[in-house]
Amino acid sequence: MINLRNDYASIAHPKILSKMVELQNNTFVGYGLDEISDAAKLIIQKEVGQLNAEVCFLVGGTITNKVLISHILKPYEAVVSVESGHINVHETGTIEQGGHKIITVPHHLGKMKVADLNRAVMMHTDEHMVKPKLVYITQATEYGTLYTKQELQEISEYCKEHNLYLFVDGARLGVALTTEHTDLTIKDLAVMTDAFYIGGTKCGALLGEALVIMNEEMKHEIRYSIKHFGGMYAKGFVAGIQFKTLFEDGLYYQIARCQNDLASNLTKGLKELGVKFLMETETNQIFPIFSNEIIKKLEKHLMFELWEKGENESTIRFVCHYLLTESDIKKALEIIQEQL
Amino acid sequence: MINLRNDYASIAHPKILSKMVELQNNTFVGYGLDEISDAAKLIIQKEVGQLNAEVCFLVGGTITNKVLISHILKPYEAVVSVESGHINVHETGTIEQGGHKIITVPHHLGKMKVADLNRAVMMHTDEHMVKPKLVYITQATEYGTLYTKQELQEISEYCKEHNLYLFVDGARLGVALTTEHTDLTIKDLAVMTDAFYIGGTKCGALLGEALVIMNEEMKHEIRYSIKHFGGMYAKGFVAGIQFKTLFEDGLYYQIARCQNDLASNLTKGLKELGVKFLMETETNQIFPIFSNEIIKKLEKHLMFELWEKGENESTIRFVCHYLLTESDIKKALEIIQEQL
Amino acid sequence: MINLRNDYASIAHPKILSKMVELQNNTFVGYGLDEISDAAKLIIQKEVGQLNAEVCFLVGGTITNKVLISHILKPYEAVVSVESGHINVHETGTIEQGGHKIITVPHHLGKMKVADLNRAVMMHTDEHMVKPKLVYITQATEYGTLYTKQELQEISEYCKEHNLYLFVDGARLGVALTTEHTDLTIKDLAVMTDAFYIGGTKCGALLGEALVIMNEEMKHEIRYSIKHFGGMYAKGFVAGIQFKTLFEDGLYYQIARCQNDLASNLTKGLKELGVKFLMETETNQIFPIFSNEIIKKLEKHLMFELWEKGENESTIRFVCHYLLTESDIKKALEIIQEQL
Amino acid sequence: MINLRNDYASIAHPKILSKMVELQNNTFVGYGLDEISDAAKLIIQKEVGQLNAEVCFLVGGTITNKVLISHILKPYEAVVSVESGHINVHETGTIEQGGHKIITVPHHLGKMKVADLNRAVMMHTDEHMVKPKLVYITQATEYGTLYTKQELQEISEYCKEHNLYLFVDGARLGVALTTEHTDLTIKDLAVMTDAFYIGGTKCGALLGEALVIMNEEMKHEIRYSIKHFGGMYAKGFVAGIQFKTLFEDGLYYQIARCQNDLASNLTKGLKELGVKFLMETETNQIFPIFSNEIIKKLEKHLMFELWEKGENESTIRFVCHYLLTESDIKKALEIIQEQL
Repeated sequence: MINLRNDYASIAHPKILSKMVELQNNTFVGYGLDEISDAAKLIIQKEVGQLNAEVCFLVGGTITNKVLISHILKPYEAVVSVESGHINVHETGTIEQGGHKIITVPHHLGKMKVADLNRAVMMHTDEHMVKPKLVYITQATEYGTLYTKQELQEISEYCKEHNLYLFVDGARLGVALTTEHTDLTIKDLAVMTDAFYIGGTKCGALLGEALVIMNEEMKHEIRYSIKHFGGMYAKGFVAGIQFKTLFEDGLYYQIARCQNDLASNLTKGLKELGVKFLMETETNQIFPIFSNEIIKKLEKHLMFELWEKGENESTIRFVCHYLLTESDIKKALEIIQEQL
Repeated sequence: MINLRNDYASIAHPKILSKMVELQNNTFVGYGLDEISDAAKLIIQKEVGQLNAEVCFLVGGTITNKVLISHILKPYEAVVSVESGHINVHETGTIEQGGHKIITVPHHLGKMKVADLNRAVMMHTDEHMVKPKLVYITQATEYGTLYTKQELQEISEYCKEHNLYLFVDGARLGVALTTEHTDLTIKDLAVMTDAFYIGGTKCGALLGEALVIMNEEMKHEIRYSIKHFGGMYAKGFVAGIQFKTLFEDGLYYQIARCQNDLASNLTKGLKELGVKFLMETETNQIFPIFSNEIIKKLEKHLMFELWEKGENESTIRFVCHYLLTESDIKKALEIIQEQL
Repeated sequence: MINLRNDYASIAHPKILSKMVELQNNTFVGYGLDEISDAAKLIIQKEVGQLNAEVCFLVGGTITNKVLISHILKPYEAVVSVESGHINVHETGTIEQGGHKIITVPHHLGKMKVADLNRAVMMHTDEHMVKPKLVYITQATEYGTLYTKQELQEISEYCKEHNLYLFVDGARLGVALTTEHTDLTIKDLAVMTDAFYIGGTKCGALLGEALVIMNEEMKHEIRYSIKHFGGMYAKGFVAGIQFKTLFEDGLYYQIARCQNDLASNLTKGLKELGVKFLMETETNQIFPIFSNEIIKKLEKHLMFELWEKGENESTIRFVCHYLLTESDIKKALEIIQEQL
Repeated sequence: MINLRNDYASIAHPKILSKMVELQNNTFVGYGLDEISDAAKLIIQKEVGQLNAEVCFLVGGTITNKVLISHILKPYEAVVSVESGHINVHETGTIEQGGHKIITVPHHLGKMKVADLNRAVMMHTDEHMVKPKLVYITQATEYGTLYTKQELQEISEYCKEHNLYLFVDGARLGVALTTEHTDLTIKDLAVMTDAFYIGGTKCGALLGEALVIMNEEMKHEIRYSIKHFGGMYAKGFVAGIQFKTLFEDGLYYQIARCQNDLASNLTKGLKELGVKFLMETETNQIFPIFSNEIIKKLEKHLMFELWEKGENESTIRFVCHYLLTESDIKKALEIIQEQL
């Protein structure tokens, strides 16, 4: 079985585990106040070009979204997200658990358009409705697509003009930053947003995400909210070690680039076989369409997710991760070719 | 510096890290649905003597408490805890974030007495007050003390008679089970409670806790609540590997026993030096009392927490962990002797 | 100025105030446990044909929706509502404050279709998404339209088959029950739903709504939730007196019928003047369309709400209430005719 | 039966009902934006000596406490209250429903001492605990006692020095302001606090409380929170009419004074009969102690609440309200005398 199901299927990158073994006899101060976490924060501050940014490590993406959003919003304020946004679909109502409404707008290949955002904002006029206050987008999106620098710039400007916060969920930020299809750097992201997070779990880390906050108001007492909503590590150094390892020598980008390249080759091979796609691929998620009959056969050899079930044919999702090799991709293509 | 500050100061026990390295090229199904997690659950079910128990792995103790409590309580139902209970003091209002009041009763060396519990229950008579519905206790307690089998039995019976759930926070369950001062087994615990958790973080795990649920009503859809409140791992297997390693050959108990033995020897040595204690020690936390002057000097050589500050003398807390050796304890005693 | 803005513009029906004056020297037991409240409950139980129904009086519609929904749902369970549903648009996130997501489906003249409901239910398959558990509809809808007996029957059956609760917001139930366009009785409603509420505020009451619960599970400890979420009257008898007065001699229906008749005559008159409508009228809300120029002029003589603003012409909303007379309607029509 | 049970036992003061009857054919703008509400607000602003104060009318005391507290606190911030505080005991966890912990301190005849407050504040030192941010007290207290000007001044100064908000629950503010035992005016209260509310329900109103906010930050978007937490009237004018009537000619104080005088005479009479009290009386609540045998007999003739049950003798609570007359008090005393 070749595992094309997701990019969080393995324990952690060998370099991370090896670093942990190296340090296993050391003791550290708890709750992220240790020196390695400090070092990891400094590396990330430099990486994003914001030495005053607050960098916090949290245990997972869902809790990171909730902490940041609940920390900054007043009870009656709401988040705006595309319908396909992770917080709206796949977090089992975590944002609502924090008391906040998600106002949804249509997505365009997973992305938000300013015109839709504006329509939503304009509809909320008084205290009988929630007040839109924070815009949530994902980069890469749930469809593996990307905001261009221009697109993000437009959203960012709209937010500033309308006194809205802008927060980017970067669960898959690595592949977004390293694909040839992007013109948006991590430094751009830091300039254009109030906060974003750098996803570790889906890019080689054992677990954990790095929340990066530029907005002063958001920084204030953020550690209280991290603890209050249950996102704080006792062993904060476990995150610090991982992010130091990922960012001190570019390992994060190397893993992400590998994941993109594999997906790109898989796409190329599938196109040569005449396979159709739900949409063009920009990162490590791809969405080929097969007949339901073929899908049934593929399931015996490949692990993947069914994305959109249709009567006769369906879309499936392949996700490439760093443990795969070019020879796995080649083998997967052969398996598919046999079924066509 | 000898680190006597806490038992979550190191990354993880070498056997756990070595297991992770061994498996680093494998891929797993996500969200705890993998085979290793299944194996770990089975081992724990056998260990607690309840093959029908639901076992779930969560990322930390605070979120475990919140998930279980919020999952089972109706909005107006409340938890009863001693004033010194972890959920009441050191979780930054996480239970209240879930909407529930904590009704507090006085503690006796960290423990709850049935008479106090009964008084609290009797005071809540109608819908103008919250309804007490779940009793929360910790074993070992925040003061390192233990409920005897008899004491837990009494609380358990009271709960059954009054239709209350009983939940035990086992963040330090390892040291509670392995000290010579206890007559309470993990099987007893499973029989007498509706749910409890086995703390990994403070007993050699990298991070993570194992929630064990006997009560059928609590089991129902618990995975929804784990996700909803932000306690679910994407990489569930990371927890599964740890708990399998900890429980398949008794490593968990071995670590805990080591932590207790070190504390016991430290206590013995301190007593020989004439040091007073806030209370008798039963597990790996001990609470010696020194003059503030001496404490200041000790801080240069030892890491520890200030527990209760007084005018002239104060209580400090030493916690023993598995990375310490008998020679560290000896050295610590020498350092202390020098200051007396 | 003729007030066509809403049906909660006056203090209360004279018969209610006169009853209050009559009883102003009496004292009553608090919190709705008085004899007049009991009498009012019995009248309503008989009226809905369910002598075992639980009847509770709450201070307002928004809090009634929240209490019922939060009382019965588990934290991760969600409400399904049409996009135009009052809880989704005009309650400032009250349901989300209680921690629950509202899953929205498209509306058809304000109404939910079973096919849309089914699509939403089918999409929510596992613990990574909220679990749809309660269907919320309004009768009459926010557009003044009505579910037919057949339509409600279909939704009711779907809910029973899929283990969903059905709750009807009856803020404007009076006009829904008394229009000639309906075939649905209050007894039907009680048979087909788990709970609904009878709106007082928009039908002659000073304030207050009567929540009627048939579902046994929902009845359990509902008074705790009413208090917990802030919906309980200290002076419960103030509600009891009102609902007794409204229902003992059919005053409720008389007020509602009056409101419908006025709206019907206004519609008829407007049609004779060639005015277009956004949709057909079934109750006391009507939605005529005028040029923006005319609307500006009408504002000098009539009070109404702008419903949907367009470039050249817009929809406005007229709501008829019991204080208006046929001569007010005639005068309003003359004013409009002058501007056309 | 003479009703000495509470001060919310009658519908409303005749002057209020008569004003409502007078205006019953008028229509008003909804949601408290009408002219009578504006007039009522202005009268109250003048009364408290703060023309910039924000005045809002809410449906009840419990929801008023919740709205103000949840509006201003960040998720991890907590309220400090005496153990006997209404929000802590008799609101069924409403503050916790809003996500906030109540830190309790001991009460002294229902009142908070600065020393206790300081101890609680000092104990909360970092992000592992909630952050005390708002002090909640009641005037008159749940025991009918009063803060003197000096006592309130001390609390107020402590709050300013420690960056804490001060909020006073004035459910029984009327009797607090009109007793001869007080030296604290409503103008003092406005100077010394960030917000307080003037209770209507327990002083002649049909229902409703007037929230008065001096603190600018608290004023900001308060109407959003009032709606969000379910405390907004559709018919805001119903509150406006009441508070205008209560405050334009001193009716509020007249009712309160009457309630105090009756209680004072009742106390005097009881003392002459040799009856003991739990504590000295300052307002309209008094707490006499009788043998349980006598209490049983009194229940046949008088309505009252059992306050603290003892083995042989118990404390009961008598509350005087404006519908009672001196002859009722005399009769009550005779009834009691007969049983002694």
